[in-house]
Amino acid sequence: MQDRNSQSLIPARKGAAARMRKGQVLKVINTHGSQVVDFWAFNEADLGECMSMEHCRASLTSIIPKVGDVLVTNKRRPILTIVEDTSPGIHDTLMASCDVYRYQQLGCKEFHDNCTDNLGNALAAMGLKRVVHPSPFNLFMNIPVKDGVKLSFDPPVGKPGDSISFRAEMDVVVGFSACPQDMLPINGADCVIHDAHFTIT
Amino acid sequence: MQDRNSQSLIPARKGAAARMRKGQVLKVINTHGSQVVDFWAFNEADLGECMSMEHCRASLTSIIPKVGDVLVTNKRRPILTIVEDTSPGIHDTLMASCDVYRYQQLGCKEFHDNCTDNLGNALAAMGLKRVVHPSPFNLFMNIPVKDGVKLSFDPPVGKPGDSISFRAEMDVVVGFSACPQDMLPINGADCVIHDAHFTIT
Repeated sequence: MQDRNSQSLIPARKGAAARMRKGQVLKVINTHGSQVVDFWAFNEADLGECMSMEHCRASLTSIIPKVGDVLVTNKRRPILTIVEDTSPGIHDTLMASCDVYRYQQLGCKEFHDNCTDNLGNALAAMGLKRVVHPSPFNLFMNIPVKDGVKLSFDPPVGKPGDSISFRAEMDVVVGFSACPQDMLPINGADCVIHDAHFTIT
Repeated sequence: MQDRNSQSLIPARKGAAARMRKGQVLKVINTHGSQVVDFWAFNEADLGECMSMEHCRASLTSIIPKVGDVLVTNKRRPILTIVEDTSPGIHDTLMASCDVYRYQQLGCKEFHDNCTDNLGNALAAMGLKRVVHPSPFNLFMNIPVKDGVKLSFDPPVGKPGDSISFRAEMDVVVGFSACPQDMLPINGADCVIHDAHFTIT
């Protein structure tokens, strides 16, 4: 499924997942520039050990990780290091992934694609069962913090082709969702959902 | 175990847990004024449904909940409402609970009491098995956000007897830990750990 020389697809509104060996580099590409990609990483040998935003914030004493930062698991072990970021560096660690409950509250009467189910489906397609559902690293997502407390859901600030790259610090399973949120402008003011891509080399 | 007319103990460095019926009010008291209390709440009928900081931040568009705010679960349902806060209102939703890994990284060679184990032990003492370990609502914990991104672990800003009160919006199990962190000044500049108390009425 993973071709070392070509980009893999994260389909608009859907999820994807892949394995990475320790030392490999993952590049997540914001192909159209305005797409948020919810992102997760799990220890391949123990899917209960996951990249954890609340542990990352504690170890980095920062809300937004940047190039050189080591992302850690819920056992505080390094899982990924950010090695490059060609975007403006605006990503989010604060917000839960969207889910069926979120869209029900926004008025949806029928099923709406959502990042939480997308991760579960992407793992299931690899024959894996989700053990925990961690809070995601929301790549390219713009959640400014005002006055140290107040949050808002703002459109992304990047451009087509922006990417962020991670080196695996253990053998990992990574999961993605091209966030299907089209009822708030979090994926751009036009609320249009786009494909994104990734490579593992 | 819960006396309606007296305070229950959250022993210094240890945990506690209790059941609340929908409509009851929990008051968590910072008896000595400088003690952080890690706090969790679970749907009694489904311990996999828990108060979730990442879902609360999304619904409240705020990093710090305040009086009148409804705290929600990982199914985005109301679980607790903040009905009173006599403290300065500085609490934390960003940081993971401390754990054995945290103290190992800080140089501990032997076991150190920690909030993660404290919650598990407090639930076990009630005959309950932890299903998920959510990121805590860290009461009275002072994590200022500077420049919208940068975090620091600062001493609490309250006074002895400060309290925060919650109304249960469903039948819940609540858990607490009088944070045993004595290697950073998060429980006061003197790094001394104190008892805290709670009432349910």
